[in-house]
Amino acid sequence: MAEKAVFYHAGCSVCVDAEQQFASALDGARYKVEIVHLGEDKARLGEAEAAGVKSVPAFVIGGAVYHINHGADLSALR
Amino acid sequence: MAEKAVFYHAGCSVCVDAEQQFASALDGARYKVEIVHLGEDKARLGEAEAAGVKSVPAFVIGGAVYHINHGADLSALR
Repeated sequence: MAEKAVFYHAGCSVCVDAEQQFASALDGARYKVEIVHLGEDKARLGEAEAAGVKSVPAFVIGGAVYHINHGADLSALR
Repeated sequence: MAEKAVFYHAGCSVCVDAEQQFASALDGARYKVEIVHLGEDKARLGEAEAAGVKSVPAFVIGGAVYHINHGADLSALR
């Protein structure tokens, strides 16, 4: 079964680019990628923060956080 | 044909982890991933720097650089 990966973003250009290059390419046999727009879904900011996400875009896979470049800090999305 | 992606790393734990989570999962139908260990292959440091790589681990895909977390600055590998 594919492992769950969550891609957090906020619609910024850095985020959209990372989504196109990574999130879509990773979604497949190995990972099932859930895409969460924290700008529109602010209810999930707490969950992202608890997982260790400091900025977007970022992936959370198996409890580990992978920040890819820098689009926006989470604090800017509250 | 698969697009070329280069994964630059330096054997650090952050690098190895990113390689296991991303480089291997990305290598497939969409990308052909080349893995370059800049600690062992210092001749390619110039190429990485010219592509805009500041730290490892990082991907270069289609001229764009994606820094994933932070393992080591390129300057530490010279």
